Amino acid sequence: MSITVVGSVAYDSIETPAGRRERCLGGAATYFSLAASFFTDVRVIAVVGEDFGPEQEAVFAARNIDTRGIEHTAGKSFFWEGSYLENLNEAQTRNTELNVFASFEPKIPAAYRDSEFLFLANIDPILQRRVREAMPQVKLVAGDTMNFWIKDHRPALLEVLKGLDVLLINDTEARMLAGNNNLVQAARAVRALGPRALVVKHGEYGATLFRDSDARTESAFKAPALPLEQVIDPTGAGDSFAGGFFGYLASQPELTPAAWRRAMFYGSVMGSFACERFGTERLQQLSRPEIDARFNHFRELTHLD
Amino acid sequence: MSITVVGSVAYDSIETPAGRRERCLGGAATYFSLAASFFTDVRVIAVVGEDFGPEQEAVFAARNIDTRGIEHTAGKSFFWEGSYLENLNEAQTRNTELNVFASFEPKIPAAYRDSEFLFLANIDPILQRRVREAMPQVKLVAGDTMNFWIKDHRPALLEVLKGLDVLLINDTEARMLAGNNNLVQAARAVRALGPRALVVKHGEYGATLFRDSDARTESAFKAPALPLEQVIDPTGAGDSFAGGFFGYLASQPELTPAAWRRAMFYGSVMGSFACERFGTERLQQLSRPEIDARFNHFRELTHLD
Repeated sequence: MSITVVGSVAYDSIETPAGRRERCLGGAATYFSLAASFFTDVRVIAVVGEDFGPEQEAVFAARNIDTRGIEHTAGKSFFWEGSYLENLNEAQTRNTELNVFASFEPKIPAAYRDSEFLFLANIDPILQRRVREAMPQVKLVAGDTMNFWIKDHRPALLEVLKGLDVLLINDTEARMLAGNNNLVQAARAVRALGPRALVVKHGEYGATLFRDSDARTESAFKAPALPLEQVIDPTGAGDSFAGGFFGYLASQPELTPAAWRRAMFYGSVMGSFACERFGTERLQQLSRPEIDARFNHFRELTHLD
Repeated sequence: MSITVVGSVAYDSIETPAGRRERCLGGAATYFSLAASFFTDVRVIAVVGEDFGPEQEAVFAARNIDTRGIEHTAGKSFFWEGSYLENLNEAQTRNTELNVFASFEPKIPAAYRDSEFLFLANIDPILQRRVREAMPQVKLVAGDTMNFWIKDHRPALLEVLKGLDVLLINDTEARMLAGNNNLVQAARAVRALGPRALVVKHGEYGATLFRDSDARTESAFKAPALPLEQVIDPTGAGDSFAGGFFGYLASQPELTPAAWRRAMFYGSVMGSFACERFGTERLQQLSRPEIDARFNHFRELTHLD
């Protein structure tokens, strides 16, 4: 089943201990779609400027990603500049230029309206809600957010959460959203705000899925992260996790407990690949056999037998 | 097979968000022995003062722990006071009084000399080495250390590492010991110093075992930590991990790869129990069926099928 994703398609200038890249293709919707495209059909809603040309278009085309919902407009694309020199787990933002994103009004192509899965990447919750309401037919809606929206746009964010089936955020965001430092209690509080499933990402320590395994039993499932010899660039790892996770779910005929568990592993697998090169380089070169080989590696890394 | 452990038997005054306890029985050798005693015979080498009486002795006796190597001497036992009000993952030390520990000269009872497993808990590396050399017959030696010895007693510590089969430390200590922030690279560097197996403990995120699965293949295995609803007191969680891990290994007829994996899970299980009450309270009340039930819970938490 196909996924529609709304989010940023952008340019990133990135500095890490491994080096520096200027204006590489980035943005949450880009990482998400590339990762999800290995599992299912993906359709993107975004806005770009005149600096987005055939070369960038070709990155999506190579993975059969539908870009009819990427609006081209006068001006420059969203731009982000950050570094990980201090800490590979957390970017220091040097510069953010919203550019054409400042006046983004998501438009949903008619051809997208039969998508059964919807992913609301990290953008203004007002826009997330608008897209959600414009696609009432979807079966499963997942979303992401960040500290900025949690702190300063809480009422709008709470409205979005009511319409989400799955929320994917990191530890700090979960604790901030719940106002509770204990992760189990924070997870319960966040789920009470709407999403029946919550994925908390722990960076290099993997991720935990909190959901009800049946009507009475709350359960948790942990996916590891691969211990990486070299983290070249962590940009987009969380969005790639979301793409692998949601892409795998969308590829399944039925959302069984086993499907949710495997989705967590595929999320972690895609996040680990994203870190191996700058920007989207690794996701562009990836193959499904490589993905499944790493999935098996993750199983060996955690399974007793 | 029996384990001999050398380390501190102490009193701790502890403050956490859940409350405060004055002078509860603590010390690395205490937590380690209680945890390991659910798997195998344990013998302790330590020193205590006149404040250590029948009530404390009974805690060890209830778990059939051999205390003939606990020397009683004039003065007060080792005392530590700390709080976890800021951060449940890291104690703030308020006071340390070495007391009788300052002149500790480990004496090994003749009855301990057939122990095949030796655990060198976190004490002065000079003492660790002395005990190691006095017990040449042991089959497997594991040890712990801390930032203080890594920073200020490096030459003595390096001598200890040469004689260790397994080192158990936390992330920060592994990175500090290796002088490398990448955990995979740090693990390799630490293992080059002696220990063929390295367990890196990640606190609430579990632990990773690095060892060679055969002569050519380096492998890693991850055990989760239980997402705990309430962490009452994290004191001794690392020592309890070590006790569960090493106790399980000592109980096995052969150290197969599967035995190492299960040992990691039992370590994590014992660490999680230790946090549920103040001091050693939970370990004192524990039963083997509870331990195995949690082991199975950990399997469900991480296994795909």
